[in-house]
Amino acid sequence: MQALWLEEQTLSLRSDLPTPEPHAQEALVRVLCAGICNTDMELLRGYYPYRGILGHEFVGVVEQGPTALLGQRVVGEINAYCGHCQFCRRGMTSHCEQRTVLGIVNRHGAFASYLTLPHRNLHPVPDTVATAAATFTEPLAAALEILEQVTVERGDRVLVVGDGKLGLLIAQVLALTGCDLFVAGRHPQKLAILDRRGIDTGPVTQVHPRTYDIAVDCTGNPQGFDLARQALRPRGTLVLKSTYAGKLSLDASALVVDEITVVGSRCGPFQKALQVLEQNQVDVSALIQATYPLHQGLEAFRKAQERGVLKVLLEIST
Amino acid sequence: MQALWLEEQTLSLRSDLPTPEPHAQEALVRVLCAGICNTDMELLRGYYPYRGILGHEFVGVVEQGPTALLGQRVVGEINAYCGHCQFCRRGMTSHCEQRTVLGIVNRHGAFASYLTLPHRNLHPVPDTVATAAATFTEPLAAALEILEQVTVERGDRVLVVGDGKLGLLIAQVLALTGCDLFVAGRHPQKLAILDRRGIDTGPVTQVHPRTYDIAVDCTGNPQGFDLARQALRPRGTLVLKSTYAGKLSLDASALVVDEITVVGSRCGPFQKALQVLEQNQVDVSALIQATYPLHQGLEAFRKAQERGVLKVLLEIST
Repeated sequence: MQALWLEEQTLSLRSDLPTPEPHAQEALVRVLCAGICNTDMELLRGYYPYRGILGHEFVGVVEQGPTALLGQRVVGEINAYCGHCQFCRRGMTSHCEQRTVLGIVNRHGAFASYLTLPHRNLHPVPDTVATAAATFTEPLAAALEILEQVTVERGDRVLVVGDGKLGLLIAQVLALTGCDLFVAGRHPQKLAILDRRGIDTGPVTQVHPRTYDIAVDCTGNPQGFDLARQALRPRGTLVLKSTYAGKLSLDASALVVDEITVVGSRCGPFQKALQVLEQNQVDVSALIQATYPLHQGLEAFRKAQERGVLKVLLEIST
Repeated sequence: MQALWLEEQTLSLRSDLPTPEPHAQEALVRVLCAGICNTDMELLRGYYPYRGILGHEFVGVVEQGPTALLGQRVVGEINAYCGHCQFCRRGMTSHCEQRTVLGIVNRHGAFASYLTLPHRNLHPVPDTVATAAATFTEPLAAALEILEQVTVERGDRVLVVGDGKLGLLIAQVLALTGCDLFVAGRHPQKLAILDRRGIDTGPVTQVHPRTYDIAVDCTGNPQGFDLARQALRPRGTLVLKSTYAGKLSLDASALVVDEITVVGSRCGPFQKALQVLEQNQVDVSALIQATYPLHQGLEAFRKAQERGVLKVLLEIST
């Protein structure tokens, strides 16, 4: 089958790979559509060691698996867990000690004609949700994870720093709470997507210091972190919603003096994400910048790496 | 009056200072006893700019003030607040935008014959609590602040890193919750104070990684932070209970991947601290290393700065 293969910081389009054989309790999924995520770009830059097929945002059709799922369009949680380690037993399956992660850790990913995942990772996509939209389930779930971790209430002053793909999803999710939201970014054309939905946006110079109850850094860079931290009132909450390249240097004493809470946030609830999509509560289609067939996958990556580009999708089969 | 004066990283014993005049709503307090804190040492090293009388841990007797307090032994909250800024109005008076802080920010401190503080900052000391013990009210309140911010339950696995003065107080406070506590430190003779109270202690090499629900870093150094962070299970909570010299360099991606919560923690509830002292729930007397009269204050500071020394008190009047 065809796939995008990462090895030693080089991505290549391969056609010599065998269709994967699902293990026990795994399904074989024919991939319909997949999205390129910043994490894919970071893996390509070598921030984490990984060798194999990239990709973890996808929609597919189950070709082998339990009868209830056969022929269904599905999305899939990316952490394949053991179910019996200390963290799985406590319900933290996305933190399983033995986990493999689709296209990220020891498990071939979604930029391929086929992938395999445990049955229990798969969720049927509601008929009314288009395949391209459903490809956003994974990052949308990650955005919703913030609401699992932090109480955000109507009227709370909330800041989102960063207008990339994830920032735009997070902003839309936070807006659903009725909070008093401001999104700071450097790209007026991206912020316009939020403006159209009535969300208040502007340049980073419009961020007031010592004001917000909650700030979410979606930039993954030290400047974004500092801006978010300084924007918080004492006892505010800073959500880290992005991985950071290398070490982050910060003023820990300021966290102590202002009694700031910092919350690291990763994968989230797929069912809620599918509900949000089904109820049209967020606009993901405006985030799609371009769609390429898998055999133009290298070009798709070049496009995704251009400055200011939002989501690039790979249409893999129909 | 006599006082220990800090100016340009030099501490001097002065006898030429006037007895302070209390402003409206302030009391004049004759200082009985005061404790030297690590923050005093940091101010001396120039980590924060401050010029004036040092000292913020004290017990005194009210000489001018409201009738209810006259002649009483009191302790005092160190943040003098305005009462009408946005943070005061939200009940966060220790984060007041206009605050002065006893012996730390724009307010002369307790290493002096007399100090002034607003009436509302003062708390009478119960008769059964000795003056030397009551001098620990401020750091004990800071230790108790952790329980205001983080839910610690019976059986929770909790780690304290650091066996300094504050670490020993924090460990004793956390032990009151019935949590499964381990205190890691480098000084067997300090840890022995906790051992005698049935608290499990040992060297840092005995800290298991990815195990604890909550870890408290009381070291203020990057090694302590890293040890505490690595000791946490996914979704664990790291409490920062110390200021850090300069910037702290940390692996922010690890916070995200493991969904760690970091909580900065500073000043705490005085009434609860006085209750804990009254009920003899912690042993503070074992933490007293030496007591000096005020006129030997410079020698007291030399002692406090020696490696491995616990609390040094200044006996100022009787």
